[in-house]
Amino acid sequence: MEEKKKTINVRGLLAVAAAVLCLSSLAVATEETKQKQLRFRENGEFKILQVADMHYADGKTTPCRDVLPSENVSCSDLNTTAFLHRMILAEKPDLIVFTGDNIYASDATDAARSLDAAFSPAIFASIPWAAVLGNHDQESALSREGVMKHIVSLNHTLSQVNPSGVDLIDGFGNYNLEVHGVEGSGFENKSVLNLYFLDSGDYSKVPSVSVYDWIKPSQQLWFQRTSMKLQRAYMSKPEVQKAPAPGLVYFHIPLPEFASFDSSNFTGVKQEGISSASVNSGFFATMVEAGDVKAVFTGHDHVNDFCGELTGIELCYAGGFGYHAYGKAGWARRTRVVVATLEKTDKASWGPLKLIKTWKRLDDQNLTTIDVQVLWSNGTPGGT
Amino acid sequence: MEEKKKTINVRGLLAVAAAVLCLSSLAVATEETKQKQLRFRENGEFKILQVADMHYADGKTTPCRDVLPSENVSCSDLNTTAFLHRMILAEKPDLIVFTGDNIYASDATDAARSLDAAFSPAIFASIPWAAVLGNHDQESALSREGVMKHIVSLNHTLSQVNPSGVDLIDGFGNYNLEVHGVEGSGFENKSVLNLYFLDSGDYSKVPSVSVYDWIKPSQQLWFQRTSMKLQRAYMSKPEVQKAPAPGLVYFHIPLPEFASFDSSNFTGVKQEGISSASVNSGFFATMVEAGDVKAVFTGHDHVNDFCGELTGIELCYAGGFGYHAYGKAGWARRTRVVVATLEKTDKASWGPLKLIKTWKRLDDQNLTTIDVQVLWSNGTPGGT
Repeated sequence: MEEKKKTINVRGLLAVAAAVLCLSSLAVATEETKQKQLRFRENGEFKILQVADMHYADGKTTPCRDVLPSENVSCSDLNTTAFLHRMILAEKPDLIVFTGDNIYASDATDAARSLDAAFSPAIFASIPWAAVLGNHDQESALSREGVMKHIVSLNHTLSQVNPSGVDLIDGFGNYNLEVHGVEGSGFENKSVLNLYFLDSGDYSKVPSVSVYDWIKPSQQLWFQRTSMKLQRAYMSKPEVQKAPAPGLVYFHIPLPEFASFDSSNFTGVKQEGISSASVNSGFFATMVEAGDVKAVFTGHDHVNDFCGELTGIELCYAGGFGYHAYGKAGWARRTRVVVATLEKTDKASWGPLKLIKTWKRLDDQNLTTIDVQVLWSNGTPGGT
Repeated sequence: MEEKKKTINVRGLLAVAAAVLCLSSLAVATEETKQKQLRFRENGEFKILQVADMHYADGKTTPCRDVLPSENVSCSDLNTTAFLHRMILAEKPDLIVFTGDNIYASDATDAARSLDAAFSPAIFASIPWAAVLGNHDQESALSREGVMKHIVSLNHTLSQVNPSGVDLIDGFGNYNLEVHGVEGSGFENKSVLNLYFLDSGDYSKVPSVSVYDWIKPSQQLWFQRTSMKLQRAYMSKPEVQKAPAPGLVYFHIPLPEFASFDSSNFTGVKQEGISSASVNSGFFATMVEAGDVKAVFTGHDHVNDFCGELTGIELCYAGGFGYHAYGKAGWARRTRVVVATLEKTDKASWGPLKLIKTWKRLDDQNLTTIDVQVLWSNGTPGGT
């Protein structure tokens, strides 16, 4: 019964989704329309929706993978689009972060068009969004650089091909975003939450290292220096702070450290192995040393969706979002929400960050919320 | 009986050693006497002696640790000096590499004088030498920078405080040395063997990361770019090569990857744990990607002396050299020798590298040679 309802629901949304898909090519930025500064809302909150592994291809003609037979009728990329639209309506995020494998380029007739369609719900809703690359985004005529350049040309994105002022850096899509305090508060011109985006690459270029790529020293050095610069600014006037502003890090391929957990010490599920490179990039060590990162968010392994805390950093999967991506029939596609909340000051204004919470929502009838947890609170790493 | 002989032998050498120790302060460079270019000998060989963990302090008044009761009579730092003199005479190395904990600074009355004394046999023998820092070298009034600056002021050293042309780099004692081909051969102006030296730091500055420090992104980026530059030069005219010149890497604290082995897949012994940082620096990945490194040589864990091959790179300990360092009574202090041999060309000249062999020698009556093994041959990583 529930399954039948679900099918109807998905079908109903397809009409909206298809309309949006047609509009998507109009959404390409023709002028500079990007939002310049992210900031906390008047209610002291900032909400991020993470969308992992959409695996978008040709829209309506691209079939779903690993869904129940009852769900398979007319199931296509448009179900992915519909899910994203519903999530935007349900959560009204301040930022959407796409953590790679945005498109499944080898099945895309025209990668640029697939990208347009994949991101169209965010563009349509005029919500700021940021994307990084996975290992499938470049598997067509469009190179990784080409994909990233196309992404930054789209409306409402805050994505960048690479940071300015850095000569040579590995990959495409390494950048950071600052989230300033509430307008009118003492923190209105300070970044109270820092978001880092990195390109975790695609496939290992070294024959003796198996399968996936990793985050390289040039990227880590950029991250480290950016973090130091942000920390210096945060701890300076006005509103001098003693501890760094919390940082959240987004990329595609998980770190080997994601394998440190089992069901006794994580929230969520682990239904497949951790598909990182067979060597350790050292990026976990670099983040630990930087001292500001409270959580890392990746995709890549679609049927893992846990968060586990290691050395003061929460390592989180989002779980697979896209219907053309492999998954597990009967195990709903899902997405991760993160909400950061500011401290209320004595003067009925807003101060620095107090709390970071997360939950996931499932693509079912009710967009069911699961696994609500505190990622960080008041300077307590991994606090609950 | 054997033990008695050994005691007499060590005592006999103390006279020479003590004399050298007195001369050591005279050996400080007063003018630029450094050798400018390492190169292979006329016989196509280049030999490196690795000396790990001398733990030198005040010379004659500094007692030995972990020796047999029969060896303990008058045993002091001078036994360390004597061992180094004997090894120089026995092996006639082209380069001596000191891989840190050269002095045990917290027991040194005057760290500069301890450094002078520790390196005096190399200086006295006019043999080029290079040093990196361990975690004990700075445990006195002399900082890590101060220790490294003192080291580079000594005669016959090729050590450098840090590479030129690099703005900011973590640590002190990151540099590389080129070993050119035989004079008069086609490779006389090419580096056919590259030596990298890195500062693996001392103690973790991050409370949540236990005990030891690690090699940072800035150092790894310098290594990576240096390796790329050397590879480009080697594969260019004259004598264009298809594969990079082999590289050997020296530093103090082992990588977590040293824990990948057991007695079934290494040569030597493992009698204690691998004391790396509790996080992975990623330097192993960086070396694997660079593609030229054939072997890594560390110290730090005095009673481990093995070499094990992982992903084409041999990871080697030297075993403890110094008598004031912890060890194992009855298990001889030791040192590692590496010999690189060039290929003979048709024209009875010398070409690129053919073979890298290693063995250890024990501080016993005969300076017994053990564990002879091939580390690399003709482009075959870990070949035997």
